[in-house]
Amino acid sequence: MRIARRRFLQSSALAPLAAAQEGHSAAVPAVDVTRKLARYVVQARLDDVPAAVRKEAVRTLLNWTGCAVGGSRHETVDRAIRALGPFSGPARSTVFGRRERFDPLHSALFNGISSHIFDFDDTHLRTIVHPAAPVAPAIFAWSEQQKVSGAELLHALILGTEVECRIANAVCPAHYDIGWHITGTVGPFGAAAAMGKLLGLDEQQMIWALGLAAAQPVGLREMFGTMTKSFHPGRAAQNGLTAALLAQQNYTSSSQPIEAPRGWANVLSTARDYDQITRGLGEHFEISINSYKPFPCGVVIHPALDACLQLRAAHNLPASDIRAVDLRVHPLVLELTGKQAPASGLESKFSIYHAAAAALVDGKAGEPQFSDEAVRNPAIVALRGRVTAAVDRSLAEDQVRVVITMRDGRQLEKYIEHAIGSAKNPMSNQQLEAKFAGLASGVLPPARIRELIGLCWDVEKLTDASRIARAAAA
Amino acid sequence: MRIARRRFLQSSALAPLAAAQEGHSAAVPAVDVTRKLARYVVQARLDDVPAAVRKEAVRTLLNWTGCAVGGSRHETVDRAIRALGPFSGPARSTVFGRRERFDPLHSALFNGISSHIFDFDDTHLRTIVHPAAPVAPAIFAWSEQQKVSGAELLHALILGTEVECRIANAVCPAHYDIGWHITGTVGPFGAAAAMGKLLGLDEQQMIWALGLAAAQPVGLREMFGTMTKSFHPGRAAQNGLTAALLAQQNYTSSSQPIEAPRGWANVLSTARDYDQITRGLGEHFEISINSYKPFPCGVVIHPALDACLQLRAAHNLPASDIRAVDLRVHPLVLELTGKQAPASGLESKFSIYHAAAAALVDGKAGEPQFSDEAVRNPAIVALRGRVTAAVDRSLAEDQVRVVITMRDGRQLEKYIEHAIGSAKNPMSNQQLEAKFAGLASGVLPPARIRELIGLCWDVEKLTDASRIARAAAA
Repeated sequence: MRIARRRFLQSSALAPLAAAQEGHSAAVPAVDVTRKLARYVVQARLDDVPAAVRKEAVRTLLNWTGCAVGGSRHETVDRAIRALGPFSGPARSTVFGRRERFDPLHSALFNGISSHIFDFDDTHLRTIVHPAAPVAPAIFAWSEQQKVSGAELLHALILGTEVECRIANAVCPAHYDIGWHITGTVGPFGAAAAMGKLLGLDEQQMIWALGLAAAQPVGLREMFGTMTKSFHPGRAAQNGLTAALLAQQNYTSSSQPIEAPRGWANVLSTARDYDQITRGLGEHFEISINSYKPFPCGVVIHPALDACLQLRAAHNLPASDIRAVDLRVHPLVLELTGKQAPASGLESKFSIYHAAAAALVDGKAGEPQFSDEAVRNPAIVALRGRVTAAVDRSLAEDQVRVVITMRDGRQLEKYIEHAIGSAKNPMSNQQLEAKFAGLASGVLPPARIRELIGLCWDVEKLTDASRIARAAAA
Repeated sequence: MRIARRRFLQSSALAPLAAAQEGHSAAVPAVDVTRKLARYVVQARLDDVPAAVRKEAVRTLLNWTGCAVGGSRHETVDRAIRALGPFSGPARSTVFGRRERFDPLHSALFNGISSHIFDFDDTHLRTIVHPAAPVAPAIFAWSEQQKVSGAELLHALILGTEVECRIANAVCPAHYDIGWHITGTVGPFGAAAAMGKLLGLDEQQMIWALGLAAAQPVGLREMFGTMTKSFHPGRAAQNGLTAALLAQQNYTSSSQPIEAPRGWANVLSTARDYDQITRGLGEHFEISINSYKPFPCGVVIHPALDACLQLRAAHNLPASDIRAVDLRVHPLVLELTGKQAPASGLESKFSIYHAAAAALVDGKAGEPQFSDEAVRNPAIVALRGRVTAAVDRSLAEDQVRVVITMRDGRQLEKYIEHAIGSAKNPMSNQQLEAKFAGLASGVLPPARIRELIGLCWDVEKLTDASRIARAAAA
């Protein structure tokens, strides 16, 4: 019997031997990375989290909620619900922005999809993880299953973000460069940690939960541009929730799922720095550097949009009076968003020409300005042809110079030093509220939108966090 | 704003650009691998499958059913059901060997776990994929959801096995060596293809189903020896079923999920041969080389067990009369199963000393002989100490020489040329039935076991395949 030798290596007892025999690249085994992380999550107290960090977490929660409500009527969500909704268990968890309720596992999936479908949710810029999309759907779904206070919910969001972003930090950029959609691959860890905290798992159970999360990575970058992209954070939320529920029943897993020779970090990445996971736990918080997009499109376009919107507002420009729009931009802008005639709303999110024209025509740069309709709008198409963009290597990524020449010869100029939404010019609370209101408009009535925004800001004071999910229901 | 360049590469429109920029290793892009595979599955007809292949598929189905029933009372299954059962939707699908029913997604998970928990299910030796464990749970669960004939069920099993094993062939051994548990990583493809066939997906939908499967690999070898190992095929079954259901609702995915520069084969393996996927589709069938374990332990031990059991049966040996058991074995036996004093039932599956002793004491080598109790059995422990094993490089992997010396000086010898279960000496139908009966004994009543075996053999004649699942319920 010509049986490949590797067959026998399936035995757990033999795994270390096999690793040694194969000369596995992880020469110096890391130890207790997962245990340290699990112990931190189990022992962490919200009182020990600095107020500024909690404030940023509240902003993350608000921004995520707006994105989930805003994306909830997208055809992608409809199709997912048609496919899987019939298999839901007892329906106690809201799909934000909709009337349907499902069991928490299904609601976590659907809310994860809707919150990411516009690619408008929060971003951990260092790793491009979207931290809330895999975590918030799980804990909100659970808040309608078991009594959770607003403070507990917020703390779970902070811890879930901490776990997933630290693991991401340890393997970036190698892991992303391989082709993994990092939000879906680290997301299960974040959701498992957050849910493990809400379920009160002990240290061993928390390790098992992280192990079950390690076994269920989701998402390839190949899926970008298809409905499967937003499936990734949704499924990651569901996988993390599943992992925590199993661990709660002492469903065992590896004790070193992240760092073992055949653990997650070795199998899914070509490089890793475990210090990024364990150093300074409880001292600095990844959620404190979370960021929020002002516009639902490629971030390199944001400086130009900022400038165009400011010029239009200041001068009340009729688009038809504009002879030319000349942009001087950072080199990446043309490399990444140089598409002159986008064919679809999705493509338009990566066309500097379309974006500038749409912003000047409509005076806005929201999801409607990046829709299939906007791409076909004659006024936008006409102005798009009068937009030029030239590289200026003296500009930083968050900078732009815009000159608008009117048909009467007048020239209007705008230099943006730090675009809105960039690290040096983050969106204000008021701007986040406006973004939320724009997303929720047409989905929820205005009074409900105001109520929901208020509940998000006040989350730490809520004795029952499920008030947010209930208010988010259509 | 120091935003990593990679952030912008998230856009679908930019993925090919980014791949080119990064000098991705897949220099010559493969095309239409997924489409060819999908087209084959969509167009395939059971009438075109040779009778010998169908017969082997029936043996696979019988063997899997016995394993699922046999493992169903394991604590691992209990814990999974306690954790996730409360979230089940309408309960129409059987957990084999148990009284509970759940929605098809949950039943697929639980049956996948139980059928793999003893590591006794079928093996595709070339890749060590366990073909049935991710596929059969999905299609059996579905047979209780929608009318499926036995012939359709069998064809789906053949096609699911074909798809998962061909993809495994394309990336083996590199993919497994990295640390992936291949049954869990290719399993979603198999389940998606099998379910896609039962759902009648068209070619485009089948491609999307495979894409959604590609985004959901499960399982690290690091998990071996824990409950998470058997979670892998269960979750793979669930993921494949989920993928097919979503695709049925036109939930879109990549058109080249396997072969794209950032597709599954490039991201999850360091080597790949797409010809293995597309060559000879419909001409040769991977299920025809499927194999079945006669003993629930490391396969290198099987020749020695075969010899010991034959000697004991022929001579009715009382273990206490045995002075010494001397084994001459293939080198791999000591390398992989040289543990002299195993501490648990799980470890005993990889101890040649325990295995030989247990077989000689009990006259059997089933799951009870590899339990925690067997490891503590004084008679087995005593005889274990009188077993020696020496390497004989003239022996092949399926061979062994055994000499038993009795206290009265008598010597009994046995040479095994091809161990039972090896490629040259496959288990007979009768032996498969005996294995099934041994597994199901104590779980189902004898008459029911006989009925169930009969239904499995007759699967092609069943107008309603759900009769098997219903007969497998406790």
